[in-house]
Amino acid sequence: MKLSNRITHITPGGSDGWEVFYKARALKNAGAAVTELTIGEHDIRTHPSILEAMHASAKGGHTGYAAVPGTQALREAVATRIQTRTGVATGPENILITPGGQAALFATHNAVCNEGDTALFIDPYYATYPGTIRGIGAKPQAIPAYPENGFQPRAADIEKHAKGATSLLINTPNNPTGAVYTPETLQAIAQTCIEHDIWLISDEVYDTQIWDGTHLSPRALPNMADRTLVVGSMSKSHAMTGSRVGWICSHEDVIEHLINLATHTTYGVPGYIQDAALFALNEGSPLEDEVSAPFARRRKITEALLATQNIVKGSPISGAMYAMLDIRATGLSGQDFANDLLDIHQIATMPGESFGTAAAGHIRVAMTIDDEAYTKALQTLLDFAKDHAA
Amino acid sequence: MKLSNRITHITPGGSDGWEVFYKARALKNAGAAVTELTIGEHDIRTHPSILEAMHASAKGGHTGYAAVPGTQALREAVATRIQTRTGVATGPENILITPGGQAALFATHNAVCNEGDTALFIDPYYATYPGTIRGIGAKPQAIPAYPENGFQPRAADIEKHAKGATSLLINTPNNPTGAVYTPETLQAIAQTCIEHDIWLISDEVYDTQIWDGTHLSPRALPNMADRTLVVGSMSKSHAMTGSRVGWICSHEDVIEHLINLATHTTYGVPGYIQDAALFALNEGSPLEDEVSAPFARRRKITEALLATQNIVKGSPISGAMYAMLDIRATGLSGQDFANDLLDIHQIATMPGESFGTAAAGHIRVAMTIDDEAYTKALQTLLDFAKDHAA
Repeated sequence: MKLSNRITHITPGGSDGWEVFYKARALKNAGAAVTELTIGEHDIRTHPSILEAMHASAKGGHTGYAAVPGTQALREAVATRIQTRTGVATGPENILITPGGQAALFATHNAVCNEGDTALFIDPYYATYPGTIRGIGAKPQAIPAYPENGFQPRAADIEKHAKGATSLLINTPNNPTGAVYTPETLQAIAQTCIEHDIWLISDEVYDTQIWDGTHLSPRALPNMADRTLVVGSMSKSHAMTGSRVGWICSHEDVIEHLINLATHTTYGVPGYIQDAALFALNEGSPLEDEVSAPFARRRKITEALLATQNIVKGSPISGAMYAMLDIRATGLSGQDFANDLLDIHQIATMPGESFGTAAAGHIRVAMTIDDEAYTKALQTLLDFAKDHAA
Repeated sequence: MKLSNRITHITPGGSDGWEVFYKARALKNAGAAVTELTIGEHDIRTHPSILEAMHASAKGGHTGYAAVPGTQALREAVATRIQTRTGVATGPENILITPGGQAALFATHNAVCNEGDTALFIDPYYATYPGTIRGIGAKPQAIPAYPENGFQPRAADIEKHAKGATSLLINTPNNPTGAVYTPETLQAIAQTCIEHDIWLISDEVYDTQIWDGTHLSPRALPNMADRTLVVGSMSKSHAMTGSRVGWICSHEDVIEHLINLATHTTYGVPGYIQDAALFALNEGSPLEDEVSAPFARRRKITEALLATQNIVKGSPISGAMYAMLDIRATGLSGQDFANDLLDIHQIATMPGESFGTAAAGHIRVAMTIDDEAYTKALQTLLDFAKDHAA
């Protein structure tokens, strides 16, 4: 029995870049004291007040089918939030509630790409990007963003791949690099999209984690609102990773079709989770600040420690919960560095090579453990690099 | 800007068969006392004990990313349940937990059909079937199952469309007809699938609602385990419609690929919902019986009332929560009957035409309101039919 081309081609053969992560988990499960600086999961849990709101909603009877597009109240709250942050007129008709950001990435690509179309994305990239594109039968094409440019994609590199492409997926603030795209970068992206009639899929799930500069949503740029699909989520902003609740914001006609797709792919999001998300959004910035504060602190710790040495170079950590560290001075690849660091010091990081080719010779450190343990692990990492460079 | 063929072709133009439903909802929202016998939603809510289990899990910290394939405990519980009910050796490696049955329908078709492939399904059908098939770029082909045959598909009709098809989707116990497929029907289906090398997608979400005969999973038939993908759900069996939790059961290799797809489409199901589902399954048949009991009662009410007259004919209500009533003796189409019944008596039903062509001249009654109101509404319906027939 033969499975479909789409599903069998989602991941190509060979390394999937997660070997260090899996090895670390296996060691941990076997009882080893592994320090995990691997995935983008908060060291805090979802705030108890959000869980109480969810339970109240469920006990109150919101356990039946919820409206597929999302509850009116949550769609309105998300629209208001986006309009406040971007200045772009946004109503509930521009919003589809999705079971998480990944579902939104899949749906947006499914909505705009035909079988065989070329879908662009930026390298380094979040692990699921190329597989999501292959999963809907399109061809992924990476555009490199180099460390020398602070991992900002350059106009010339985007332009080189734009002809004939259907969509471009960007992510700012960026996972895995910590870059926040500048107005110049986003202007260049917008110009290319308009010139080549390309849909822009803008993954903005880290939009509450900005340490330097400001988050600019490309939907707010001139003539971009109708060709941009914004992906948002409660996962990172509210430590609700496991609750799988996010959204797509786009033109009303696009959302109408996406609702149709949602009817046939997920049939909506649990009503009590939507009520919990609504409660969380209504708490406003104090709760968002509480959730993002640890990363702001650890970003400072990271920059202070990096300043004490000159082997490991940091890219600007302008946003998100990661530090992308250049370890090329050690003579090691990111993979070898990460493997050795795990084997010798039981510290797990992600090799830059896990995220494409542009971050080779780097490692990604997720700032997702408590400050003291984080400081100690990062110091060990830097000492390890120093020893190797010597 | 052009959207993809897939998304724009999910629903064809013209009637979507839900006009009466939408009209009823609009009337209700405007304050009218509409009796809704339309959708498959219990008149009870999710049992409080399930909600308490969910809250305990969430408060206990199960709010982070859950394993994409599902928690080991839930996969094991579902596997055990299936093995116990079917006798087919089933382990957690045969199970993927999905965000609901609809997500499972989409994923299974995505897994087996390429763009342009023919995917078979039985008419009358659940509303999302053809759209799900179009949503993954395949061609839906209906196989009629006639009222004269108790809505059991006939071997000759299946055989007629089998050549060159990639998959066949069946649903027993059946929505919208209430049929439970006989061993003979399922043997014929299995034989055709084997002869023509067709994947069988078996939607068994009503497997706890059997009033006549026994539920037979086609995965248990000889040589069928490796070509069958079973779709299951907690929605109907445990009144957890809004929680969006279901599963796919298939060969381990198929599940491996489906996990890959899930990583790129939904990234798992909330851990606390999975813990709630685990609690519910562990409660065993007493809870399932409690949830299904109202439909067993109302099925008896339906049959007793139908026996008092000879205008409206019932098909055997062997399973599920619906009665498919033949109103052809009134001279009306299902659509006209349902519309008039709503306009005159504020009783909303679904025209048989909403579910394809084979149930034309029928209406589907969902037995989803309390016994007394149900009895009264059905009596009104029968009197209305009698007046029209006269």
